[in-house]
Order: sequence, then structure tokens, then C-alpha cells
Amino acid sequence: MSWQSNAQGKRASLIELIPPKWRIPTSDIPSVTRLRDFGEYICRFLDRRELEITNAPSSRILANIRSGEWTSVDVTRAFCHRASVAHQLTNCLSEICFVAAEQRAKALDESFLRTGQTVGPLHGLPVSLKDRFNIEGLESACGYVSWLGKEKSENNEGILVKRLRRMGAVFFVKTNVPMSMLMGETNNNIIGSTINPYNRNLSAGGASGGEGALLALKGSPLGWGSDIAGSIRIPCAFNNLFGLRPSFGRLPASGMATSLPGLPVNGSVVGPMAGDLPTIEMAMKVVLDTFPWQDDCDVLEMPWREEKLQNIRSRTARHRERDGKLVFAVMSCDGNVQVHPPVQRAMALVTKALLQRGYEVIEWQPPPHHDAVQTLFQILGSTAGKEVRNAIDASGEPPVHQLQTWYDNDNVEPSSSAEFWDLCNQRDQYRSEYNQYWTSTREKNVAKRQVDGVIMPVAPTAAVEEGCFNYYAYSGIVNLLDYTSGSFPVTFADRSIDVETPDHVPLNPTDRAIWRTYQKDLFDGAPVGLQVMGKRFEEEKVLGLMEALTAALQDFSVGQIGEPSSPF
Amino acid sequence: MSWQSNAQGKRASLIELIPPKWRIPTSDIPSVTRLRDFGEYICRFLDRRELEITNAPSSRILANIRSGEWTSVDVTRAFCHRASVAHQLTNCLSEICFVAAEQRAKALDESFLRTGQTVGPLHGLPVSLKDRFNIEGLESACGYVSWLGKEKSENNEGILVKRLRRMGAVFFVKTNVPMSMLMGETNNNIIGSTINPYNRNLSAGGASGGEGALLALKGSPLGWGSDIAGSIRIPCAFNNLFGLRPSFGRLPASGMATSLPGLPVNGSVVGPMAGDLPTIEMAMKVVLDTFPWQDDCDVLEMPWREEKLQNIRSRTARHRERDGKLVFAVMSCDGNVQVHPPVQRAMALVTKALLQRGYEVIEWQPPPHHDAVQTLFQILGSTAGKEVRNAIDASGEPPVHQLQTWYDNDNVEPSSSAEFWDLCNQRDQYRSEYNQYWTSTREKNVAKRQVDGVIMPVAPTAAVEEGCFNYYAYSGIVNLLDYTSGSFPVTFADRSIDVETPDHVPLNPTDRAIWRTYQKDLFDGAPVGLQVMGKRFEEEKVLGLMEALTAALQDFSVGQIGEPSSPF
Repeated sequence: MSWQSNAQGKRASLIELIPPKWRIPTSDIPSVTRLRDFGEYICRFLDRRELEITNAPSSRILANIRSGEWTSVDVTRAFCHRASVAHQLTNCLSEICFVAAEQRAKALDESFLRTGQTVGPLHGLPVSLKDRFNIEGLESACGYVSWLGKEKSENNEGILVKRLRRMGAVFFVKTNVPMSMLMGETNNNIIGSTINPYNRNLSAGGASGGEGALLALKGSPLGWGSDIAGSIRIPCAFNNLFGLRPSFGRLPASGMATSLPGLPVNGSVVGPMAGDLPTIEMAMKVVLDTFPWQDDCDVLEMPWREEKLQNIRSRTARHRERDGKLVFAVMSCDGNVQVHPPVQRAMALVTKALLQRGYEVIEWQPPPHHDAVQTLFQILGSTAGKEVRNAIDASGEPPVHQLQTWYDNDNVEPSSSAEFWDLCNQRDQYRSEYNQYWTSTREKNVAKRQVDGVIMPVAPTAAVEEGCFNYYAYSGIVNLLDYTSGSFPVTFADRSIDVETPDHVPLNPTDRAIWRTYQKDLFDGAPVGLQVMGKRFEEEKVLGLMEALTAALQDFSVGQIGEPSSPF
Repeated sequence: MSWQSNAQGKRASLIELIPPKWRIPTSDIPSVTRLRDFGEYICRFLDRRELEITNAPSSRILANIRSGEWTSVDVTRAFCHRASVAHQLTNCLSEICFVAAEQRAKALDESFLRTGQTVGPLHGLPVSLKDRFNIEGLESACGYVSWLGKEKSENNEGILVKRLRRMGAVFFVKTNVPMSMLMGETNNNIIGSTINPYNRNLSAGGASGGEGALLALKGSPLGWGSDIAGSIRIPCAFNNLFGLRPSFGRLPASGMATSLPGLPVNGSVVGPMAGDLPTIEMAMKVVLDTFPWQDDCDVLEMPWREEKLQNIRSRTARHRERDGKLVFAVMSCDGNVQVHPPVQRAMALVTKALLQRGYEVIEWQPPPHHDAVQTLFQILGSTAGKEVRNAIDASGEPPVHQLQTWYDNDNVEPSSSAEFWDLCNQRDQYRSEYNQYWTSTREKNVAKRQVDGVIMPVAPTAAVEEGCFNYYAYSGIVNLLDYTSGSFPVTFADRSIDVETPDHVPLNPTDRAIWRTYQKDLFDGAPVGLQVMGKRFEEEKVLGLMEALTAALQDFSVGQIGEPSSPF
């Protein structure tokens, strides 16, 4: 069978897994010139109850199931329906298991009726996962035609999937990833491109781009992505979502498909993505409360540290006092590539919101990011993409256009171990310097504290046109350092204020090329997210900082700047 | 200048740093046939007060300094004297800084007199360090002639050294390591071989062999070694000492000389070594209490967890109750190389002591260790010893005889990154299997608990004749798995009971060769230590298990088996 028919078969089988009444004739969907944003549009396919359920955050869904107001079957069906529409609009899914999901939801409902008890803190909650997570009965093709047809067994599942299920999660879909799983946008020869639901001109980002589009359209209350150079944060920033990139070893990342088997350092980490911040916090807490280190030797025995989150909350509440005042650093440009006008405005907006709230804000002037991220890419590319090439070639499919240049450059020799170790050594030295710089910020602010969090762009752009994502220094620096970083929504590109600057002075040809991709009309409506970076294993702290940032932005945007309600 | 005169110059300069009154003419030292064990002999060089001080464990030394009974100068001088004799008997030192140590001690005494306060929990305690730790004003030649003459600055110091100093430690010596720092014994062309003070026929082990001999002769109350395949535990087992090999990232390991720069995985870890267990516990606790992660990004934010130690203590106290009973596993042979009679006896002795104490003991039958440790050595050897070779060749010195075969094998090509990643992948799979095996032990004991700790040999031998250490599977498995392991003393080789077994059946040629190195008369008096292994980051738990083991052995040896005093 040709790769084309394999791919076509998979694409068609996904649609067949959608109940006929939920299918939408392609011809019914308005063209992008008539309809840019699917946010409102998707609602017309859902009834009032489905809308009520799918518009609710995870906390309300869980509470309503626990109170008996909603059944897990109700909730699951509503999300299956909304996810199926989201897929038909944006190509966001890679696997569908609605039948199994409904059976599972039914069993949970029956157990709840029988015992009066939930099976765990996620009882009845639909949870979506990036295609990389192996789930019994589903494939993990991950955008490779040659990986199709290999249904996973329970033995292939990782600890996260097992724990989520044990806590009561209902798996109903897996989401699209790019061929190679190593891109800031999402395209492959099986499902195709996942498009941005806020602005159909643009990509949903990647590599967890399917999650990005699905969550943006509220087709799932909680998704799980993975991040090796920005793959959680980029789709979050591009889709108006919250997401957390924990440090390596905080969460279990076993049982996942990979294009980099054996990668010795800077491995991919998994993290939660959602439309609301409390869902991210809840997801982290409940997973850590299952002691994943007991079954996964790569996970550190580091329980959820509520006190770290509370510390930031109490410092947020006392923000006008000198003692304990939060100290943020901002970095609007990495010195190599300048960010597009919407991202510039987002940085300025956050800075103003923080200052107006009374926090301290300093400039972040770290050891240069760009070369360090080059080291990261040399590390990841040390085997010259052997596995990626094998997985592509095994079916005869061509690389997607985003990989064409790399693929054609067949002459690259894999490096030697000694060269690889040299890269790791450079990385270690950079990490040490960076850490020293961070520590030195104690001397650079009024409160005489180390900076609590660093606010940076995730990418130089507010989403991208397909094929244009090629600058990873803003996101990848976090991976090189193995720091913790949270992505949060800030604003939307606005053609009326984010105008092109004709007198823009490029720093170098890359900067010029990326700058030129900005067109205010094309980008109008694209979400702009930023990230806040903490040190290694500061997940709880970063979540607290995300709360503080979100609150500051909200106050600022409604113009209600004043004393917040204080618990003291 | 020739390498010979460089080496000779360093050797002589060390002796010159010893006050003339403490020097011992070589001709005064009895031959090994007349005197095998230096344990008693060293005492004749010390006066009563020096003996009182140097025979005291760190807790008493610190208490007596805090109470004003002893000054830090008294204590420092006593240890300088004893260390200088130890060096002249065993070749255990690589650097001496008695003058600086005494100045430092004086400053500490003055500060204490002035303020009535100690500067920290190690106020006035002499602390020895393996040569790898950079210290301002000293070299870190680490057995390479070409590395001589490069005095380190404060900037070269790592976080551990800085923290120890801040807590009041007095640095007075650094200790000998083998050329390459990667051997289970200690020999180089500068200082020569470090010999075993309990049995001068044998090696002190390695790579922290200088620490081993110094601590055994009570020339230091607390030493710090490092362990990449057994380098803390081997010299502990060979020298009747306690030592802890923590998991990677628990303690700061920056600012150290290395033959494996950039090694991406399975890196060397640092850990404490001492003649008594409370010193090991204290050392871990005080270092973690300084929050080393604040300044070293490779250290995890994992504070000292007293509750983990207390949990084991309370379960030790309730050892006859079924609930919470400690469960040990024992592995006397790895299936590839059988251990010498003294080590066999030590394993049997510990097993009996544990059973008699009422603990549960099961057989450990894990995924085979030997091949996995081969993987570790392939990982460490992936750059084919480039740095070792460069460091040797730079001065023109020949390799020591232990390295000759490796050195002559010049044709080994460094591997490719892809081969390196494959090794890492094999390692990851093995670690996962091993962890699953450990978890499965829940089903294999009466208490239905996972095994708490695994008792194994550290090496197949009780020390070795120089040149004979070549089997690392017993120690290296811990490094491959990145588990925690503590080495503890058990017994001494005894010619009257540890007899050769002529009908011994070898498993393979390596087994035969190692077995044949045993001669009861030659080994008589050599210490035998074992290790107890916990999972990753179970340092506090392993310390608790070491307490339980030591208590069980003590009860067993004095025949006082009965109810221990219980806090309940």
C-alpha cells in the first residue's frame, strides 16, 4: 500500500470515528476571508447543555460531577462533540476513541452511583493528550506514515497515563503533532496542518499544536503536551492558553514516542496545558500527589510544595510593602532577533501592569541566549536526525515542506561522542554562568532579593504563517537551562495599534527576515502570550507568579488599579 | 624540566611542608613482614593529647570546641600531625596546607573568643578532601604530572568547598588519587601508591584511596570523596570506613578536576567518608542546610529530610512488629564473579544478624548487573579516554602500570554520537526494568512492602594487591542506576576461617582469575565492608538503614540479641 493511501486511510478513519450527526460538510465552513476566528463559530454546532459543560473550567466540571449535577457521560459526550467539531475546523486530532471514552465514563458514573465515592480527583474529567503519549488501543504515529498501524498495549503506557486514568480521567482524543515532533508548528502528511482557531491565516504552533487548537476551541478542559524547545509554550502563546514547562524529572515522561531515542541530556518534559490557570495548578498537584517517583525512576521524589505557591500568594497580597515585594525581570529582546509589534506591546503591557501594581521590575541582561540555544540544537541534532530520516524514509513519504531543507542536506555527518561531550561541557558552563547572573541580581534591585521570575517572549511573533517558524531562542533557552517556565495569555494582535514600522533597523539578516513576516492585517486577532521563567524545579513558584501576572494584567486592563483585597 | 624531576619535586615539597619534628626517617619504619597493620603503630608518634583529639569522632570534637575545652588550633595541629605521619606511612596525601590551616584555626578561635559564637556547625573541624576538589592556593594535579604547578584560585572553588569553609571547616590536606581518577586503587607517578593501613600488602583502594588510608589512620575526622563507579565505597570497604554515594544532583559537585569533561550522563557525585556513621549523617545534613541549590544549578532543591531518617529509626525500634518491619534483600553473587571467602562470610554475617534481629530478608534477583555495568563503562569510555591520554602525554610521563594495557591499545576509535545515544538508551531501559523489579518485590515478602535496602558486596575482594582491581560490577551498578548507596564496615579477613576453597567452581575465566588472587595469609587483617543500596535520592533512608545494619551487627557480634530499647 502506498504511503498516500495509508495516510488517506488514517485521515478518513478519524472522520469515521466521529458520529455522522457531528460531521460537517467541508463546503459548509466559511472561507478564511469571510471568517477568520472560529471561537464563536464553533458554538453554533453545540446545544445549550453542551456549551454549558464545555465552557466550564475543570474545577466546575469536577465539582458538578461530584455533586451529581452532571454525569461523566454527559461531560464526555459534550467534549467529544466539541472536539470533533474542533478537529473538522482545525485538523487538531490524531486519534479518536469516543466509544471507549463513553464506556469509561459510564463505568465511572456507575461506580459513583454505587459507592457514592469518586475514584479519584479527576473522576469523570475528559483529558486530551498529545499524540506522543502511548495509550492502550490507540496508535502513536506522531506524523510518520511508517508508524501507522502500530496499536499500543498497556505495557507501552507511561506512568502519567496510568496515573491520570487511576485518578478518574477519561481519555477521548489524542492530538496532532508535526512530522519529527520537533517543530514550532504542526504539519504532517497524515492529518495535515493544524491551523490557528483564532486566526486561520496562521499556524496553531507546535509541536503540541493539536493540543493548542483543541484547547483554544474548548474541545478539552485539560491537555498534556511535551516541551523540548518550546513545544508546550509556543502553542500556548499562539492559542491564548496557559501552560507549564516543568524541569526535567518533575513529572513522569515514560511511555512516549520519540524521534530522539537515547537522547542523554535536555530531554523532553511533559506538562499541562489549559484555557485557565487553576486547571494547570490542579493538574500538577494531583499528579504529584500520586507519588509518580515510586514507579518511574526518572522522577524526583519532590512532592507538591503548597508552601511555595502560598509564599508567592502572600507576597502578591503584600505587594506594596517593601519586605517580600515580588521582583520581576523583563527581557523584550534577546539581542539577536527583535519581536513583532504585538509581542513588543505585550511586553510593555505586562511591564506597566506590574509597575502599576507596585512590584519591582528590572531589566534582564543575561549571558547571551542565542549562541546557547544553538548549542541546544547542536545537542539535539548530534545524531543528525537519524531516527527522523529513518521514520520518514520507511514509508516513502516525502518530508513536509518545513523539513525539506534539512532533509535534502544529506551530507551532514553525525558527530563523534567527543564532540557531543564538548557541547555538553559548553552547556554546563553556560548554565553555571547563567545561574551566577541570576544570583547576582540580588545586588540590582531595591528589595535586595534575587529576581523571582523573568518575563520574556515565547517567540518573536504572535503565531506564524505556516512554514515561518524558525527562531527558537526565546523558548529554547529554558530547555537548555532546564528551568521552569509558564506561558500565559496577554493580548491579541491588533491591526489598529500594532502597525508595521518602516524605519525598523534590523540587527542581522535573520532579524530582518523575521521582521518582514509581520503584516498587521494578516496577524490581526492572533493571540499573544508570554512566559515567566523561574529557576530549576520552581514549578509551584512559577504558578504563583503566573497568578500574580494574570491578576496584574486584569487589574490593568479594567483600569481598576488599587489595593487588592488582602487576607491580612 | 623532565617529568621525573617535576614529580620528584612535588613529592619532596610535600615532605618539606611537614614540620621537621614530625618527619620520620623511612628506615625507621618496620618492614611489612614485621608489621602489617599501622593502626596501633601510628599512635607512638603522637602525644596523649593529640591521641585524645584525633581518636574523637567529629561530634565530640565540635562539642569540645564549642564548650571551649579544646581550641581549633589544638585540634588542627593534632590532625596535621597525625595526617603527616599517615602520609609518611601510606602515601595518602597530595596537598598539604598546615600553615594556612593553623592561621585559619587561630582566626576561628579568636572569633569565638570575641563573639562567644561559632561561625557555623563545622566551627574548627579539620576536613580533608580528595585531590579533585579545587581549593584556593592548592593544586589539583590529580596524579598527572602535566597538571602540576597550576595553583587554584577562589574562582576555581566549587560550592561544596565554599559552603564547608563558611560553616567553619578547616582545610589542612588534600588526598591522593590514581592517575586518571578512574581506578579502584590509587597510584600515580607523583605521589606513588597509597597502601592499605590495615594490611600493607594491599591497596587502599580508589579512586578516593588517599581519603581511605588517611581516615583509617584517623588522620582526619571527616573526608570528602567522589564516586563515578565506586570511588567512595571501594576505599570505604577496604579501610573499615563509612561512606555515602548520594544520587546525582543531591550535593554540589562543581569546581572539581575531571578526566571526563562534559560527560553528559552518569557523572561523578561527591559524598562524605568517615570512621563513624554519625559524622556521615552530620556532613550530609549541614551541607544541605546551607541550601546549596541556591548557588549550584545542578543541585536539586531537596532539603535534608529528617523524617525519612526518623521513619527508619522508628521502624528499627519496632522491628519485631509486623507493621513497618524493615525488609532487606541480599545479593551475595552477581552471577558473574563470585566474591572471596572473607566477603562471602561478611554477607552471611550480615544476613544472620538481620534475621536474628527480626527483620525480613529476601534474595535479590535483579536484571543482571554485569552487562549493565559494561554499558556504564562504554558510556564513560565513549571518548576513548581522550582527556586521560592528553593529560598523560603532555608531560611525557608513562602511564602507571594499571593503565598500561589501556594506554597501549591506541587504536580504539572514539564512538559516534549515535552510538553514544544508543548506550544511553540501553541504560534507560535497564534502569526502568530494574525499577520495575524493585517495585515487584512488594509481592515477595511477608510484610508486602517494597524492599527497603539491598545489601551487596562493594567488590569481590577484601582490598586487592596493587594492580589487581579490575571488576567494578558490584559498585558500578549503583552509578548506572543513580541509586543511593552507603558503605559500612562488617569484619576483617581472617586467615583462620577464610580459607581458600580448592574445589571452587569458576563461572568463567574472569571469575577464575579473581578467585585465584585470594590467599588467606596475604589478605589476613584486611577490612571487609559491604554496601546497602536504596533507590534514587533515598540518602536519608539509606543512612537510617546503615544505622540499623550497624546496630544489628553489633548486637550479633556481642551475642546480646534481644529486645532493643524502644522509644515506644
